[in-house]
Amino acid sequence: MTNTLTFLPGLEGVIATETSISLLDTELGQIIIKGYDLIELSKTKGYLDIVHLLMENTLPSDTEKAGVADKLKKEYGVPEGVTKVLQALPKETHPMDALRTGISALAGYDKEIDQHTLAINKKRAYELLGKIPEIIANSFHILQEEEQIHPLKELSYSANFLYMITGRKPTELEESIFDQSLLLYSEHEMPNSTFTARVIASTFSDLYGALTGAVASLKGYLHGGANEAVMNMLLEAGSVDAFELLLEKRLRDKEKIMGFGHRVYMKKMDPRALVMKDALKELCALKGDDLLYRMCEAGETIMEREKGLYPNLDYYAAPVYWMLGIPIPLYTPIFFGSRTVGLCAHVIEQHENNRLYRPRVHYIGERHSNHSTGEL
Amino acid sequence: MTNTLTFLPGLEGVIATETSISLLDTELGQIIIKGYDLIELSKTKGYLDIVHLLMENTLPSDTEKAGVADKLKKEYGVPEGVTKVLQALPKETHPMDALRTGISALAGYDKEIDQHTLAINKKRAYELLGKIPEIIANSFHILQEEEQIHPLKELSYSANFLYMITGRKPTELEESIFDQSLLLYSEHEMPNSTFTARVIASTFSDLYGALTGAVASLKGYLHGGANEAVMNMLLEAGSVDAFELLLEKRLRDKEKIMGFGHRVYMKKMDPRALVMKDALKELCALKGDDLLYRMCEAGETIMEREKGLYPNLDYYAAPVYWMLGIPIPLYTPIFFGSRTVGLCAHVIEQHENNRLYRPRVHYIGERHSNHSTGEL
Repeated sequence: MTNTLTFLPGLEGVIATETSISLLDTELGQIIIKGYDLIELSKTKGYLDIVHLLMENTLPSDTEKAGVADKLKKEYGVPEGVTKVLQALPKETHPMDALRTGISALAGYDKEIDQHTLAINKKRAYELLGKIPEIIANSFHILQEEEQIHPLKELSYSANFLYMITGRKPTELEESIFDQSLLLYSEHEMPNSTFTARVIASTFSDLYGALTGAVASLKGYLHGGANEAVMNMLLEAGSVDAFELLLEKRLRDKEKIMGFGHRVYMKKMDPRALVMKDALKELCALKGDDLLYRMCEAGETIMEREKGLYPNLDYYAAPVYWMLGIPIPLYTPIFFGSRTVGLCAHVIEQHENNRLYRPRVHYIGERHSNHSTGEL
Repeated sequence: MTNTLTFLPGLEGVIATETSISLLDTELGQIIIKGYDLIELSKTKGYLDIVHLLMENTLPSDTEKAGVADKLKKEYGVPEGVTKVLQALPKETHPMDALRTGISALAGYDKEIDQHTLAINKKRAYELLGKIPEIIANSFHILQEEEQIHPLKELSYSANFLYMITGRKPTELEESIFDQSLLLYSEHEMPNSTFTARVIASTFSDLYGALTGAVASLKGYLHGGANEAVMNMLLEAGSVDAFELLLEKRLRDKEKIMGFGHRVYMKKMDPRALVMKDALKELCALKGDDLLYRMCEAGETIMEREKGLYPNLDYYAAPVYWMLGIPIPLYTPIFFGSRTVGLCAHVIEQHENNRLYRPRVHYIGERHSNHSTGEL
C-alpha cells in the first residue's frame, strides 16, 4: 500500500498538518498569522501583540498587552541550577548547544511536567517566553567568561532582551527595530524547527523536549545558521567591490550562498526581508555609515541577475543585528528566542488535536534470502 | 499546488525517505535490518553484531566483533563537566530529561562539532555508543542520590551496561537476555524518534542535536514511555485475576492500554514481543516464580479477544527488565540506549544524501480581509 505513494524528498509540498496558526500564502505573497498579514502587523504592532495573538488568538487591547508584559516579567529569573549547568559546560560549547542544554535542564523545575492540558501548556509557554531571553544572553556571557546580565523589569520585553545581550540600554530606535525583528521571526508556518517540535510533541512529550529539538534543528546551517553565515560573508568582504567579487567567485565555484532563496517563496523576495532592509537603511542613516546597506543592495542585484534568487529574512536581519551591536554567535539563538512563541503555539495545537507522526520508508537496501539468513 | 495533495494525519503511510537501513515488511512479517531478518539474527547474534551491521554494513567476523567491543571500551568515561551538569539538575528531574541534558552537554567536548563527513560522523557515533550507557546509569544514580557506578572493561558491553544500572555483575543468562533485548530494540525503521532525528539532521545540525531530539520524542507516552506504563500496570494488579479485572475495567472506561498494538503491525503480534516472551519464561523458570508470565499471557488473551490487539515489544520487555532488577524509570532510557545505534545510522544516511525536511500545512484558520488588516 505504502509503495504506491509518491516519495517526495524532504516532504516537499506534503501537507504535514492542519493548522489555524499560520500560512505562507505564496499566491497573495502574504504570511498569514492567525488571519492577519504579518507584514501589515509589523507596521503598527509589536512583538507582544504577536505573543497575545499566538497564545490567546486575538490582537490585544492596550490593557491585555500590558497584561502579557506583566505576565512575562513575573517569569524572569532563571533557576540557579540551570545557571550551574551552563557554568559546567566547556567554554568551547556552541551557543545553540548551550541554549539547548539550558532549556533541557529547565524541565526539571516543572512540577506538572507530565501534564499537557491547554491551561498548563499555556502557563508553561509564558514561563519559557519569560526565561529564554535570559538563558540566551547569559549562556553566552558565561561561555565568554563575562559577567552575567540580569533582567531589568523597567524595560520593555524586547528592550530588556537586547539589554541583556549588549549590557547597554537601547535607544528608542534600536528597541523598536529589535522588536520588529522579533515580530518578523516570531512564526512562519512549518519550517524544519517547527516541524521538529510538532513531531516530538505528537508522542505527548512535553514543551521543553519539543523546544530542545527545535533548537537542535535551528542550529543547522540549512536553517537558522544562515544569518550568521551572511554576516561573516559581509565582514570577510568589507567593501561593496569586494563583496561583489566574493559572491561572483562563490557562484563560479558553485558554493551555496546563504541568505538567498527559500523553498516556499522561491522566485520572490521574502516580504520580511524588505521590512528589515528598511530598518537597516534607517540604522545606517542614524549612524552616518551606509556601507552595509550598499553592500547588501549590491549583493541583491548580483544574485537576482545571476541566479534569479532573492533575499530572505536572514540576509537583512544579519546586518541589522550587527548595527545593533549584537555578537554574531547570538544571531541564531535570538532567532530561536523570537520563534519560541510560534513553536509554543504549534506544540499546544498539536497536543489539542493529536495524531502521532509515524511515516514509512521506501527501502532501497539489500534483501538476503531467508535461507542465508537462517544460516547465520 | 500543495492543496491538491491528500492530507494524511500523522503522515500515516507517507514515504518520508529512501533508506537502506531497515524496513518493517508487514507482508512477510519481518523486520529487515540491512537485509537480514532481525528475529533470525536474535537467535544467533548479539548486540555488537548489530552495531557492526548498522555502522559498517556487514555482519562482523569474530575479529571484527572484538574490534567493535574494543572501540566502544576506548570511549568509556563521561567528561567531568557532563557529570557536573547532571549533578546540578533538580532531583525531581525525569530520567529522560536528565539523559537529554547530558547528551546535549556532551556536544561541547567535540572539537569537530561543525563537521559531518562520513568518517567524523561514524567516529562520533562510536563515541556516543560508548558513553550513553554510562550517562543513562549515572544520571539516574545521581538523581537518586546514589553512588555513581563506573564502567568495568572486563565485562562485555551489555553486561557492563546492566552492571552500571544494578551495581551487580549479571549472570550469564541475565547478560544474554539483556543483550537480546538491546538487539531487539536496536533499530526499527521510522518510528517517531528516528523520524525526529532525521528531520533535525536534515538542516545539517549535528548528531548530538539529532539524538537530543530523539530522547525528547521517545519520552512521550505514545512512544518509549509505554514500557514503564506496562510495568506499573502489572505491579498495580499484582495477580492474574486482578490484572484481568484491571484490563477489563480500562477497556470499559475506554482508557488507552499500553503495550498493545502498533501502527505498522496492526493485526499481528510484534515479532520482537515473542522473543521477549520466551526470555520472560526462561527468567521466570530460573527464579521459580512465573507470576509475571502468567499475568502477561492472561492479558494477551483478553486484549486479543476484546480488541483484536496484540502485544508489542514493550509489553514483554517490561517484565523482563523487572526480572533483571532494573528500576522502572530506566526502561525508556535503556530503550534509547539500545536505539542509539539505529539513530546514528539514520543520521549518517541523512547527511550522506540530504534533502531538508520542510513540509507544508493545510490552513484552516481565519482570514481577515486586507482592509481590516490595513486598519490595525
